[in-house]
Amino acid sequence: MKFLTFEYEDKNYYGVKVKREDSAWIIPLLFQDFSDVKDYPGTLLEGITEYHTLDFQELVRKLVESAEASDNADKYKAPFEDINIMAPVKPPNNTIGFGRNFKAHTEEMKSEVELYVFTKANSSLVGDEDTISSYSDVTEQLDYEGELGIVIGKEAKNIDSSMAYDYIYGYTIVNDISARELQKSHKQAFLSKSLATPMGPYIVTKDEIPNPQDTTIVTKVNDEIRQDGSTSLMVRKIDELVAELSKYVTLQPGDVIASGTPAGVGAGMDPAGFLKAGDTVRVSIDGIGTLTTHIK
Amino acid sequence: MKFLTFEYEDKNYYGVKVKREDSAWIIPLLFQDFSDVKDYPGTLLEGITEYHTLDFQELVRKLVESAEASDNADKYKAPFEDINIMAPVKPPNNTIGFGRNFKAHTEEMKSEVELYVFTKANSSLVGDEDTISSYSDVTEQLDYEGELGIVIGKEAKNIDSSMAYDYIYGYTIVNDISARELQKSHKQAFLSKSLATPMGPYIVTKDEIPNPQDTTIVTKVNDEIRQDGSTSLMVRKIDELVAELSKYVTLQPGDVIASGTPAGVGAGMDPAGFLKAGDTVRVSIDGIGTLTTHIK
Repeated sequence: MKFLTFEYEDKNYYGVKVKREDSAWIIPLLFQDFSDVKDYPGTLLEGITEYHTLDFQELVRKLVESAEASDNADKYKAPFEDINIMAPVKPPNNTIGFGRNFKAHTEEMKSEVELYVFTKANSSLVGDEDTISSYSDVTEQLDYEGELGIVIGKEAKNIDSSMAYDYIYGYTIVNDISARELQKSHKQAFLSKSLATPMGPYIVTKDEIPNPQDTTIVTKVNDEIRQDGSTSLMVRKIDELVAELSKYVTLQPGDVIASGTPAGVGAGMDPAGFLKAGDTVRVSIDGIGTLTTHIK
Repeated sequence: MKFLTFEYEDKNYYGVKVKREDSAWIIPLLFQDFSDVKDYPGTLLEGITEYHTLDFQELVRKLVESAEASDNADKYKAPFEDINIMAPVKPPNNTIGFGRNFKAHTEEMKSEVELYVFTKANSSLVGDEDTISSYSDVTEQLDYEGELGIVIGKEAKNIDSSMAYDYIYGYTIVNDISARELQKSHKQAFLSKSLATPMGPYIVTKDEIPNPQDTTIVTKVNDEIRQDGSTSLMVRKIDELVAELSKYVTLQPGDVIASGTPAGVGAGMDPAGFLKAGDTVRVSIDGIGTLTTHIK
C-alpha cells in the first residue's frame, strides 16, 4: 500500500493511493463512515504506531472495500490535482541520516568511511512538489542527496540485524538537502542538514518492495541525471543500519532513517553543481515514485 | 509558574506546582470542571504551543483560583509522593545541544571553541528521580553535563538576538548524558548523546527567572560537588544561542536548547570521574530546582 499525508479542502488528512488512479482514499472519512472504531488513528504516524495492535493495513483494506461497494465512493476520494502532498510523517526522533554509506560518494566527498550519523530538524520537512528557498543568506553551496528512507514500524532497541526487517514498516524517499560549507565549518551536521528535508510522496509498505537492497535511486536536476545508483552499493546494508542505530537509540514507530546517498552530488562535480534558484530536483526510487522539489 | 508532566494513578497528566506545597494541580481536571474550553491543551507541549493565542498561563491561574475556592480542592491536587515526574515535554525537533559553550569546559575537553550543535533523541528522555542504565555494553565513559535548558514558546526563524527573549517560554534543567569514547570515535555527537536525556523536574516560566544569564549550575555526583558554574560564563549568551540557531532551524514551541555545560565533567578530572552503577547525579539550578538521576 502507498500511504500519504495531504492537504485537501483546507484540512490535513492521510490516505492511501487508489490503485491505477491519481487519487487517494481519505482514511479518516472511511473510519468515520465504515467502521465502529471510535479512537481511530488520526494521522499516518498513529496508524503506523498502532499497526501491530490494530492490524492497521488489513483494517484499511476492508474500509476501502466498503467504500468501493458503496453508492458514493467518490465522496471518499481526493483527486491528486486537488491536494498538496505533505511529508508523510513527523518522525518522533527527527529524520536520522547516515552519511558516507556509498563508497563512491565517500570518495567524491574526499572523506574517510566512518559511522556518520546526524539528524535533520522536523521543522525542515516539506512534501512532494513543494518549493524551498535557495537559502542564499546562509549558504552558497546548497546540495541535494537522493536517499532511500527506511520507516520504522515497531520500537527497536538493541536488535540483531537478522531481525531488523521485522521492525521496518516500509520505505519513502528523502532528499537530504545539505549546505556544504556549513557542514564543513560546523563539524556537527545538524545545522547544515536542517534547512530543508523533502520527504515522500508516499510511505510504501515493505511487502511492495521485496528487494530494497536492489533498487535504483535516480536524482535529476532539471533534465540532467546527476545520481543513478543502486542500493546494492550501500556500505552498511539496511538491516545493519537499523541494528547499529538501535545499539544507541531507541527507534520508534514512524522514525525515518535516510540511508545514505550514491555518488553524483553537486559537491562532487567539477565544476561543482550546487542548486540555484529556479532549479527542480527529482529523486526517483523504483517502487516508491518520484519526490520533486523546486528551488525558489 | 512551575509546570510539570507526571504519572499519577496510572495516567499521564500535566500540572502546575502548588505554591509552598509538594503537590501539583492537575491541569486537565481543572479544565474539565472549571472551564468551558472544550478543546483544551491535553499536554504541556500543547499548552506551551497555544499559550500566545489562549493566554495559557492566565487561564491556568484562574482555573487554580476556582479550584482553591471550591469545596473539594484536594481532588485536583496530586501529592508529589504519589507521582512519577516525567520529562516535561517531547521537543518537536529533539533536544538541541550546544557543545563547548563554557570556556573552562572547552579547555578541559581539549577542544577548540566552535559552533558545535547536535541533537539528543527524544526516545532518550527521562524524568526526575528516574533510574538509567550504566550502558556498560556500549560505553566505559558515561559522563554527566549539567545544563540550563531554554524552552522555546513561539516559532522562531531568522530572529535577531535583541528579540530572542520574546521567543523563550521558560527554562528547565537538562543533564546532557554523554558517552565520551563514542563522541570521539563517531565524530557526530548524536549517538553518543542519545543514550539518556534526564530533563526537568519543571519548566519554569521566564518571569520567575529574571536573570537567566546570572544563575548557578551545580552538579553533584553522590555527595561530591563536580560542577559549580555561573551561566554568566557562557561564551554565546542565551539570546545569541536562540538567534544563531534560528538562522538555520525553524525553532518550534516546546523545543529545548541545552545551552552548554560548565567545567567539571568526569572526562576533565584526573583521574577521570565517569559514572558507574550505583551513582546518583543531581543537577541544581537556582530558581528551577534539582534534577536527580540514578545509575543502575
